[in-house]
Amino acid sequence: MAEDGLSKASILDAAEGALRKFGLAKTNMSDVARALGVSHAALYRHYENKAALRLAVVERWMGGVFEPLGAVLAEEAPPETKLYRWLSALREFKRERARQDPELFAMYAALVAETAGALEGHARLLAEQLAGIIEAGAASGAFVCKDARQAAAGVFYAFTRFHHAAHAAEWDTPESEAGFEAVWQLTLRGLGAGS
Amino acid sequence: MAEDGLSKASILDAAEGALRKFGLAKTNMSDVARALGVSHAALYRHYENKAALRLAVVERWMGGVFEPLGAVLAEEAPPETKLYRWLSALREFKRERARQDPELFAMYAALVAETAGALEGHARLLAEQLAGIIEAGAASGAFVCKDARQAAAGVFYAFTRFHHAAHAAEWDTPESEAGFEAVWQLTLRGLGAGS
Repeated sequence: MAEDGLSKASILDAAEGALRKFGLAKTNMSDVARALGVSHAALYRHYENKAALRLAVVERWMGGVFEPLGAVLAEEAPPETKLYRWLSALREFKRERARQDPELFAMYAALVAETAGALEGHARLLAEQLAGIIEAGAASGAFVCKDARQAAAGVFYAFTRFHHAAHAAEWDTPESEAGFEAVWQLTLRGLGAGS
Repeated sequence: MAEDGLSKASILDAAEGALRKFGLAKTNMSDVARALGVSHAALYRHYENKAALRLAVVERWMGGVFEPLGAVLAEEAPPETKLYRWLSALREFKRERARQDPELFAMYAALVAETAGALEGHARLLAEQLAGIIEAGAASGAFVCKDARQAAAGVFYAFTRFHHAAHAAEWDTPESEAGFEAVWQLTLRGLGAGS
């Protein structure tokens, strides 16, 4: 916590609340400062402008997924199991969020789409985790693949339907369940598992 | 052409124009009848209500893809080649449409999303074509797969990023190009090609 008593979490909570209340176009730094009961200047000492604050809000939101994914990475499990659990955890995390608070989920989906650079960095971190699992699998002989990074990009794209917010409306359907399994079978074999 | 001189194409053209001009919420049957210079009653003889007319407009729009896809199906080519060409043709068709008239593309994307049943039937037709290519490949030994329908569903979902309108904004990026190839490599191997 900074000298002025403003923690990062409290600022981001206030910003999230203001965005939810007023929408992206109408929320400004004054709304956030007011919600915190501090001056403009105090808020600006933490975030130099609205864009910086917005990016921090979006990054915290997106970063939430690294908790369940980190837990999967820390498990002792064969690479195929680990990959399946990682993909399922990514899907389940997003699905739970969309279920629990559809409005907030939709707000963040729009915010992410409008915040330059936010998604790219996030997707890169996810692709690196995926590549790590695939590399370990290739090293142990569980997978047979020449280029773990390309394979990771392929797997990440192939599961778009189950982790990209644009498809949230269909995540609770039986078709989505069957589709996930179908893409998983294709992926498992595509990585040379069992070959 | 019907007795009243109204062809299906002219009605759908008029409806598309009206939708474009007024938007989905505000377009009604009178706007379409007016654009055609005919009475309400004349239009209702062809489409019993706005929902039926809208579905016909959407189905014509989506059905356009079956021309290039049909051409691929008619070619003499090995199954791997045919599958690659089919997936590329689907992608290229959508990408061209999004490029040529982004506004119309976005309008239709919204219309498809709001028209119950439109997408399901369309996706089923696409999945059947895919299953046909995969089945033929399994029969010739080019692919090794137990369940062509499940494999087709997997492939269709895996390429979501390259054919679903929600991702149109990124179709012209180098990442999308590389992503398509990465998913293709995963798919080709996932279908047991060359095994």
